[in-house]
Amino acid sequence: MPYSVAVSGASGYAGGELLRVLAGHPDIEIRTVTAHSNAGDPLVAHQPHLRSLAHLTLQPTTPEILAGHDIVFLALPHGQSGQYTDALGDVPLVIDAGADHRLTSPDAWDAFYGGAFHEPWTYGVPELPVAGGKQRDALVGASRIAAPGCNASTVSLSLAPGVAAGVIDPGDIVTVLAVGPSGAGKSLKTHLLGSELLGSANPYAVGGTHRHIPEIKQALAGASGPSTGSGPSTGSGTELNGIHVSFTPVIVPMARGILATSTAPIVPGVTDEQIRQAWEDAYAGETFVQVLPAGQVPRTADVLGANTALLGLAIDRDANRVVVVAAVDNLVKGTAGAAVQSMNIALGLPEDRALTVNGVAP
Amino acid sequence: MPYSVAVSGASGYAGGELLRVLAGHPDIEIRTVTAHSNAGDPLVAHQPHLRSLAHLTLQPTTPEILAGHDIVFLALPHGQSGQYTDALGDVPLVIDAGADHRLTSPDAWDAFYGGAFHEPWTYGVPELPVAGGKQRDALVGASRIAAPGCNASTVSLSLAPGVAAGVIDPGDIVTVLAVGPSGAGKSLKTHLLGSELLGSANPYAVGGTHRHIPEIKQALAGASGPSTGSGPSTGSGTELNGIHVSFTPVIVPMARGILATSTAPIVPGVTDEQIRQAWEDAYAGETFVQVLPAGQVPRTADVLGANTALLGLAIDRDANRVVVVAAVDNLVKGTAGAAVQSMNIALGLPEDRALTVNGVAP
Amino acid sequence: MPYSVAVSGASGYAGGELLRVLAGHPDIEIRTVTAHSNAGDPLVAHQPHLRSLAHLTLQPTTPEILAGHDIVFLALPHGQSGQYTDALGDVPLVIDAGADHRLTSPDAWDAFYGGAFHEPWTYGVPELPVAGGKQRDALVGASRIAAPGCNASTVSLSLAPGVAAGVIDPGDIVTVLAVGPSGAGKSLKTHLLGSELLGSANPYAVGGTHRHIPEIKQALAGASGPSTGSGPSTGSGTELNGIHVSFTPVIVPMARGILATSTAPIVPGVTDEQIRQAWEDAYAGETFVQVLPAGQVPRTADVLGANTALLGLAIDRDANRVVVVAAVDNLVKGTAGAAVQSMNIALGLPEDRALTVNGVAP
Amino acid sequence: MPYSVAVSGASGYAGGELLRVLAGHPDIEIRTVTAHSNAGDPLVAHQPHLRSLAHLTLQPTTPEILAGHDIVFLALPHGQSGQYTDALGDVPLVIDAGADHRLTSPDAWDAFYGGAFHEPWTYGVPELPVAGGKQRDALVGASRIAAPGCNASTVSLSLAPGVAAGVIDPGDIVTVLAVGPSGAGKSLKTHLLGSELLGSANPYAVGGTHRHIPEIKQALAGASGPSTGSGPSTGSGTELNGIHVSFTPVIVPMARGILATSTAPIVPGVTDEQIRQAWEDAYAGETFVQVLPAGQVPRTADVLGANTALLGLAIDRDANRVVVVAAVDNLVKGTAGAAVQSMNIALGLPEDRALTVNGVAP
Repeated sequence: MPYSVAVSGASGYAGGELLRVLAGHPDIEIRTVTAHSNAGDPLVAHQPHLRSLAHLTLQPTTPEILAGHDIVFLALPHGQSGQYTDALGDVPLVIDAGADHRLTSPDAWDAFYGGAFHEPWTYGVPELPVAGGKQRDALVGASRIAAPGCNASTVSLSLAPGVAAGVIDPGDIVTVLAVGPSGAGKSLKTHLLGSELLGSANPYAVGGTHRHIPEIKQALAGASGPSTGSGPSTGSGTELNGIHVSFTPVIVPMARGILATSTAPIVPGVTDEQIRQAWEDAYAGETFVQVLPAGQVPRTADVLGANTALLGLAIDRDANRVVVVAAVDNLVKGTAGAAVQSMNIALGLPEDRALTVNGVAP
Repeated sequence: MPYSVAVSGASGYAGGELLRVLAGHPDIEIRTVTAHSNAGDPLVAHQPHLRSLAHLTLQPTTPEILAGHDIVFLALPHGQSGQYTDALGDVPLVIDAGADHRLTSPDAWDAFYGGAFHEPWTYGVPELPVAGGKQRDALVGASRIAAPGCNASTVSLSLAPGVAAGVIDPGDIVTVLAVGPSGAGKSLKTHLLGSELLGSANPYAVGGTHRHIPEIKQALAGASGPSTGSGPSTGSGTELNGIHVSFTPVIVPMARGILATSTAPIVPGVTDEQIRQAWEDAYAGETFVQVLPAGQVPRTADVLGANTALLGLAIDRDANRVVVVAAVDNLVKGTAGAAVQSMNIALGLPEDRALTVNGVAP
Repeated sequence: MPYSVAVSGASGYAGGELLRVLAGHPDIEIRTVTAHSNAGDPLVAHQPHLRSLAHLTLQPTTPEILAGHDIVFLALPHGQSGQYTDALGDVPLVIDAGADHRLTSPDAWDAFYGGAFHEPWTYGVPELPVAGGKQRDALVGASRIAAPGCNASTVSLSLAPGVAAGVIDPGDIVTVLAVGPSGAGKSLKTHLLGSELLGSANPYAVGGTHRHIPEIKQALAGASGPSTGSGPSTGSGTELNGIHVSFTPVIVPMARGILATSTAPIVPGVTDEQIRQAWEDAYAGETFVQVLPAGQVPRTADVLGANTALLGLAIDRDANRVVVVAAVDNLVKGTAGAAVQSMNIALGLPEDRALTVNGVAP
Repeated sequence: MPYSVAVSGASGYAGGELLRVLAGHPDIEIRTVTAHSNAGDPLVAHQPHLRSLAHLTLQPTTPEILAGHDIVFLALPHGQSGQYTDALGDVPLVIDAGADHRLTSPDAWDAFYGGAFHEPWTYGVPELPVAGGKQRDALVGASRIAAPGCNASTVSLSLAPGVAAGVIDPGDIVTVLAVGPSGAGKSLKTHLLGSELLGSANPYAVGGTHRHIPEIKQALAGASGPSTGSGPSTGSGTELNGIHVSFTPVIVPMARGILATSTAPIVPGVTDEQIRQAWEDAYAGETFVQVLPAGQVPRTADVLGANTALLGLAIDRDANRVVVVAAVDNLVKGTAGAAVQSMNIALGLPEDRALTVNGVAP
C-alpha cells in the first residue's frame, strides 16, 4: 500500500517540483495538495505541466488538512514551516523544503533570517561527507528532515571533500553562482520579471548577505570534523570553525539551474593527485554526485530535470586554488530531488526511486 | 574632412560592432570593409543590422587594400594582425582589436598564445589607473593602439583602483565571469550552437588557462606601480609582481554582456571608507566607468550597446574580501567602444564622440 | 533653445525608452519626469541604464507638473491619458504613447477597452500608406499625436501596401506575432515572471480578443481608401470595411522585439511582380521602413534599439497567400521611436533626429 | 528478456533524445550506439547529460553493426536512412526518425527533398485521426515505422480533428510556429549559433518551402478520408485533395519546443459546439494529446521533456477562423517520444511505457 502524501505550497515552484517527482514514485499516493491564497483552484491552474495530477484541487494549508498523512512535505516561505511543526506531531515523516529547520545555530538564524528559531532537523543531503561518514547515515529512519538550500548544498557538495580530506583551506572560500530565477520562487517582484532577466546577468545579495552562507559554513564544518573545532553548532552564525565564504549569486537567463564556481586555497604540500583523490574517494559509488574526469566541466543543461550534481575539478597552481565547477538543477537536486531522495532513505526504499540521473538536454 | 577608415574582419562580431559604433561618428568615413572567406559579399549579408552601410561590399583582407586609409582597424583572430603590421607602416593610426599587440611579455605570449611575438602597442583602456595617472595619457597622439580583451579590461577596471591604492592584495584575486557567447566570435563550433547555450550555463577554460589572465596581471601590475616590482614587462608570463588570478568564465544565455564578480583580500588595517574612496577617486569624473553607490549592483542589461562599465562595490568583512561586480558590454566597452574611445583620444577628438553612456534596457 | 519636455510614466518601459531616445536628441531638454507610486525616487532607481539622466528625480504625475512644457509625453496605462488631456490644453505638443487617443470608433473602443471614449489624435506612424499619400502628411504641424500600438503598427506596416495597391484581400488576414514581454509593461503578474517566460513560448489573447485588432483594421481601412467603404471611422469596432484579422501573439524569451508573420490572400490575377512592386513603391525612399530583397527575411536582433521596421516578403502561390515577415523593436519603432519620429515631423525637425537605423546585434 | 536496441546518429539531438527516453524503458537494452565522424568517442563526450549510459562507446554507423538487434532506430539526416534499409531486412523492427520513409508521394519527395525516393513506412503518430479510426491501428504489429517530422505532426494533430469532422476548411490553412533550434539538429551553421539566436526571433523557410508542408498535407488528407478525393498518395506533392498550407517557422530563444498557431476557415453553418466537440471527441481518452478547456492555451514549458501535445482551441467568429495553439516538445512528442510510443504499440507493450505526460516546468 502506498504512502499517503500531502504537499503544502503546491502552487509554488518548489511544491510543483515535489509533485512532479512524486508523481512518478510508485510507492507514493499524492492525496492532498495545499496552498494559501490559491486554495480552491485546480492544481493545474497553477501547475499546468502536471497533467497527471489534473484531478487535484488545492486545499487550504492548515495543520488539520496536512495531518493524517504518512508523509507531509512543507514547501513554504521561511518562517512559516515552524508554525505547523507542533500540529504535525503525529505525522510519521515531515520534510521541510524551507529554511526553518536547517540551521543548528540560533545566532546564525538570527543574523541571516530573524524571527523565531526552530530546532534543526536531519539535513537532507545524503552524499555530504561528515565526520566519520556520509550524511546518508543520519537519514536512515529519520522522521523530520530539512531539505537543503539549493545554492548551499551545491557549494557544500563542491568543497566538502577537500575540507574533509584537509587538502583545501576553508578559511578563504570564494564562490560565485550563475542561477536561474526559479530559486527565488513565484514572488511578484519587479526584479524577477522576464523583461528584467531576459538577456541580462543580474547579481544580488552581494557582499556576504545571502542566507545560504551560514548553511554552507555549517555543512563544511560538519565535513571538517571535530579536529577543526568543537562542532558545527557552536559558531557565532557569521563564523564557524574558521570557515569564511565570499558568496555571490548572479541570476542568469535560464529558468532553472545552478552553475557554482567554488574555489579555495590549496593546503601547502598536497599534491595534485591527493587533491583529485579527495573528491573521487568522497563520491565513489554515488549515483547522483559525480566527479567528471580531469579536463571536463559540467553545464547546467546536463542536469536539467535530473537529481544529479556534476562536479568539474581543476587545480590552478599559479592561483594556488582548487576550482570546483558544479552543475545542479536547483529545483531537483537542490530541493525536491534531495527531499525525495532523503525520503527514500528514511523509509528504507531504494534511494534512487523516482529520481533520474539523466538530464533533459539540449 | 572626415578621416577615412578601413575595418578588417568586418563580417565578424567585433568588426560588426566597430562598424556600428563608427557609423554614428561624424568625423569618420567608413570607406573600406574587408573579410576573408566572405569577401565579395555585401556587408549586410553578414551584418544585416547595419542598414546604414548597405552600400558596402566586403573586399579581401590584404595589406594593399587596408593601406591608404587614415585609420585601419584590425578585427582578426589572434596571430593574424601581426602579419599586416609592417605593410601598414604608412597608415597614421592602426588599432588592433585582437590580442597580438597587447602583451608586453614574450613569455606570457608564449605560455598563453604561442607563435610569433609582436611588439606591444599602447593599451586602449583610457580609464585604467596606471602609476602616476591614467592610461589615457599614453593614448594621446598614439599611432598604434591595442584594444583590450573584453574580459581582461572588465576585471582590470574592477580591481585596479584597489591595487593602486594599496587597499587590496592582488596576490589572491578570484574572478568569475558570466559572459555572452559573442565574445567567442562567429566561430562554427558545436559548443557555441544555440541549442547548447540556450537555458544553460556553460563554463570553459577553467583552472587558469584563459588567455586573458596575463593581460589582467599586466594591467594590475601597471596599476600597482613601480613600488611592487621592476615593472609590468618583466614577469614570467604566469607571475607578475606577485599578482595571482583565479579566473573562470561561464557562458550564459545572453548574446552579449559580461558580469564579472571579482574579489580580492582586504589589506589589513584599511577602513571601509578607505576602500570605497579608492574606487570613487579612481573614477571620479569618468563618463564611461562609474562606481555605483553603496548597496547597488549593476546588471548587464544596463550597459547593453553602451560604452559604460558599471561597478558595484561591496566589502565583506567576514570573508575579508572586497567584491566588485562589474557590468560591461563585451562588444562595446570591452572591444569596439574601447577602440573608438581610444581613437578619439589619439586624434584629439572629444573622447565620447559616437559613444553612448545609456544602455538599451530592458 | 531646446524644447522643454516632460515624460510621464517615466519609471515604466515605454517611458524609459522615450527617455533613452530623447536623451540623444540635441533639440530636447528633458526637464521633468513623473511617475505614480514611484514618485520621489531617483529616476535611475527604476531606469538604471539611463546614466546620463542620473540627475533627475521622479515627480508625481499631475496635470500641474506636466503643464508648462513645450512637449509632454504620456506613457500611461490605457484609460489614464484621457484625464490629463483637458488640463494640458496649453501645451503646444502632447504625444500619447497609450491607447486612449488611437481609435476613431467609439464602438471599437467600447468592445476592446471600455470606459470613457476619448477623441482620436493624429496617428503616429509616418510611413503608413493612407488614401492619397502617407500618414506623415497629417503629422506635419500636429499638436496632439497618438503613438501606435506596437503590434498594431507592425502588422499595419506589413500589409498596408498590399491593401492600398489592391493586390491582397484584407478580408482574411492571419497574423501571428512572436513578441518580447516588455510590450506588456512592468506589471507584476505571474505570467510575466522570468521563470514563466524563460525557455518557453507563451501565447495569450488567442481568438480575436487582443486590443490591437481594431487598431489594425482602422489602419488598413485607411490604407484601402474611400473605395472600400465610407471611411475608417464608421465600422462597428469588430468590422471595418470588410477587414478581418486573425491575430495571435506569442510571448517568446527575448526582452524586446516583435517578429510578425502576416499573411493575406492574393487577389486573383495579380502577378508576383505587381505584388512586390506594391511594397517596394510604398516604402521607396523611407529610411525606417525597409523591404528586404526577395528571399531575405529579417530577425528581431537586426532592429534591436533601432527605429527600423524590416519587412521580408514572400509569395506562396500554393497557399495563395502573401507572407510578410516584419521585425520591429516594440519599444522603439513600436512606441518611443514612433513617438519621437512623429514629434520631429510635427516640429519640422529632421525626421531621423535622435533615431538610429542600425540595430544592436548580435 | 529485454529487446536489444541499436541507435544510429547517437551523437545528435534526435539520437540523444531517443537514448534519454529509452534509458528509462524497462523492456529495452541499449546495446549499440553509432555515429559517423564521432565514432570511437565515448557517448557522453557528445551527450554529457546521459550519465546512465556513460559506459557506451560510439561505433561506426554501418549496416553490419546495426544488424543483429531486435530494434534499430535511425536518427540520420534525410537521404541517409534509405541506404541502410535493405541491409536491415532481418531486423524485426526498424524505426526511422528521419524523413526518408514518411512521404507517400514521389512527387512531393522530389519537390521538397530530392534524391532517391524510398517506400513509405507506417507513420508514427498514434493519435492522428485517419479515415475510420486512428493511426494507432496501423502501428499494431508494424515492423517499419516512420517517426514524424516534429513541426508536421504538431500541425497535423492540431487540425486533423476539424478536417475529419468537416468543421474546418483545409483549403486555406495558415500556421506559424515558434520553434527551438534543436529541431534543426547539431549542424555547424552560422544561423544556428547562440549569438545569432539569443534574444532574437529568426524566421526561415518562409513562403512555402519548408519540407514539412507535404507531410502535413498528407496527414490531413488522411484525416479527411476518401470523401475528399482518391487518397493521400495521389497528390502532386504541392497539392493534395485541395489542402493548402501557409507555413512559417520562426526560431525563438529556447533550446527545444514548438508553439504552433494553426488556423483554418470555419465551414459555413457549423456551431461553436460542433467545433469544440470535434476536437474533444478526437482526443477523448488520449493520454498524450490533450485539448485544454475553453479559454486556456498551452505553453511549451508545460510539455518540456514530456510526450504530451497540449492543444488550446479558440473560435474567432469575426475572423471566421478556428485557431488551435499547440505546445509540443519537438524532441519528445515531435520525434523520440513518438518513436518510442509507436514502438510500444508495435510490440504490444503498454503505450505509455517510458514516456511521461508531465512537463519539466518552470
